[in-house]
Amino acid sequence: MSIFKEIHQNKNSSARAGILTTDHGEVETPAFMPVGTQATVKTLDSADIKNIGSGIILGNTYHLHLQPGEDIVAAAGGLHKFMNWPGPILTDSGGFQVFSLGLQKEKKLNSANQGSLVKITEDGVAFRSHRDGSLHTFTPEIAIDIEHKLGADIIMAFDECTPDDASYEYTKEAMERTHRWAKRSLEAHQTNTSYHGYRQFLFGIIQGAGHENLRKESAKYIASLDFDGIAIGGESVGYNMEATVKIIDWVVPFLPKDKPRYTMGLGLNPTDLLIAVEHGIDMFDCVAPTRLARHGMLFTFNKENKHRLNIKNAAFATDQKPIDAWCDCSTCKNYSRSYLHHLFAADEILALRLASIHNLRFMLKLMQETRCAIKEDKFLELKNNWI
Amino acid sequence: MSIFKEIHQNKNSSARAGILTTDHGEVETPAFMPVGTQATVKTLDSADIKNIGSGIILGNTYHLHLQPGEDIVAAAGGLHKFMNWPGPILTDSGGFQVFSLGLQKEKKLNSANQGSLVKITEDGVAFRSHRDGSLHTFTPEIAIDIEHKLGADIIMAFDECTPDDASYEYTKEAMERTHRWAKRSLEAHQTNTSYHGYRQFLFGIIQGAGHENLRKESAKYIASLDFDGIAIGGESVGYNMEATVKIIDWVVPFLPKDKPRYTMGLGLNPTDLLIAVEHGIDMFDCVAPTRLARHGMLFTFNKENKHRLNIKNAAFATDQKPIDAWCDCSTCKNYSRSYLHHLFAADEILALRLASIHNLRFMLKLMQETRCAIKEDKFLELKNNWI
Repeated sequence: MSIFKEIHQNKNSSARAGILTTDHGEVETPAFMPVGTQATVKTLDSADIKNIGSGIILGNTYHLHLQPGEDIVAAAGGLHKFMNWPGPILTDSGGFQVFSLGLQKEKKLNSANQGSLVKITEDGVAFRSHRDGSLHTFTPEIAIDIEHKLGADIIMAFDECTPDDASYEYTKEAMERTHRWAKRSLEAHQTNTSYHGYRQFLFGIIQGAGHENLRKESAKYIASLDFDGIAIGGESVGYNMEATVKIIDWVVPFLPKDKPRYTMGLGLNPTDLLIAVEHGIDMFDCVAPTRLARHGMLFTFNKENKHRLNIKNAAFATDQKPIDAWCDCSTCKNYSRSYLHHLFAADEILALRLASIHNLRFMLKLMQETRCAIKEDKFLELKNNWI
Repeated sequence: MSIFKEIHQNKNSSARAGILTTDHGEVETPAFMPVGTQATVKTLDSADIKNIGSGIILGNTYHLHLQPGEDIVAAAGGLHKFMNWPGPILTDSGGFQVFSLGLQKEKKLNSANQGSLVKITEDGVAFRSHRDGSLHTFTPEIAIDIEHKLGADIIMAFDECTPDDASYEYTKEAMERTHRWAKRSLEAHQTNTSYHGYRQFLFGIIQGAGHENLRKESAKYIASLDFDGIAIGGESVGYNMEATVKIIDWVVPFLPKDKPRYTMGLGLNPTDLLIAVEHGIDMFDCVAPTRLARHGMLFTFNKENKHRLNIKNAAFATDQKPIDAWCDCSTCKNYSRSYLHHLFAADEILALRLASIHNLRFMLKLMQETRCAIKEDKFLELKNNWI
């Protein structure tokens, strides 16, 4: 059974509405997925995740492998039971973190001549934990095995995410290796598609950085394999929207309509979601809404201020209004800007949760209205109202 | 109208059940009051406070004066509206913090020859902020004015809390000054008992450290004034239960039955509440339950382990049980020890809230059962079951 069904193709753009069906429930798309790196969406419990209206959340395989370890999660009956979240979950394969956290630390350590932290071979990647420096190896088979034990509804193939400043030659070589790893991930998965007794869907990942011919080649190859969905990876995806739109437009024509499309790490700004939706994307995740929230940067409808306000600004100390009049989150319903300003000024932990609830609900409400607008062929009106 | 009514005097001990009636609701006693120092019970929002079954919470005048300042709280309509907590609130007078935080910092600074941070005169106390070193002055009149603006249902007279190692002479002098300040607090309050349009009740505070004759003298004097309730202050109260019981037994015979009795800062251990209740106390507050929670020390019924477990202990990594079988908090209902252990190991902020919810609900449930036992004349049975 296919995980995805397109419900409505918007008349005036590539935007489309669809539905993901998993054994832990249905998710309407386009869908923004809050990131729950270490089996918690930072500062939120599972009741909060439900209350903000999240349909699906994301967990990070790299982090969960290091702490608590997939065997402990499996012993609890999988991630859903471990964190008491009954709805759908997606885990990445750890590839992105292995490379990004490894390289960040490598840059620091190289100056102290401590050598490389990431060693890539045809078989897989050896890397050191960012927590304690212990040595670990991920191969496509190991990553899939970990994802089986974690038990997310959607799991990702193991890939190499090349930096944008890598040479064309290296990017091509890494992409071809990612393709071979994609096939191995699929084979490893097909031996065991329901470790916990429910179905796990596997998505493939398109790489190729900013090179048009590589991206198209990658799209064609990944689309040719028996994946349940297709993701678009890459360092710039979501962090450089101009480059991201180019990449999306290169690859989407090669993707089947009956598989969901997922840009990994996209969602730095609420309006970025609308741009990606317009170009045919169904799924997104990004740590930015919660990370920005923890720094007091809160989303608003206000275009003039680029849809953000800094609640730490002294102007908010006596402001009795909610963060945003359009938002319907519990923070906006129950607390004033003045109170939030105070909580940040007083270094109160509660500030981080109330702000995270707001930014996430803001993204999810925008997606809710987006889905509605697509179905009514009013997507471009909605987009023009925001951008 | 009196704030307090005794409902039932236990037959076999001084334990009694009563009710506090405020314009923001009724509170059954004996009552444990979670501490919301900076207009939030640390990590909890107002929905959490309701869900743990709290009848009344405490705010700290010293902290709220420094951040956000009483005028900002008053502009929001008082502390209830500012923090969106519709139930009863008590504020202390700031006296305890002025002396304890001042003296802590003074000890550090004296080694660097930066001079004293706390200057006591007949008029009041000049002190430096622990936040930014700015100079402030509290007098009985200023403290009461701040408490009026904060708008708690119960406010406290301004007092000097002497350290236990102060000389007899100094303790006597400070107690006599505290008595004069009590009278001035009362006079300042009587000019304006409903700043925000609802009634504020004023409690007096007995001092005298560990000296029997001073404690009795203080009890007689404070009881002779027109306060709505009587508190017992002092450095050892709540932190040395043997000394605390002695002090309680010295003063209670001098206290009228129609006024509530409040030991300030008592509640380090769940069973400490039972001891104080047995000796005739009605109200308690303590930061320990939430502070211990943030360090992973969680309350349990288990006597052998002194009613605590350290969730960071490796033994809990795979333990699928809730923290405590007796507890009915949302953390125990929804999450395992294994998950909580992981959240602490992963430095997740959520750990602090889930643990705080547990420790506070544990104290509040114990008080709920205590009230029930008193009314059925079964208090000593309950106490013997715990201690």
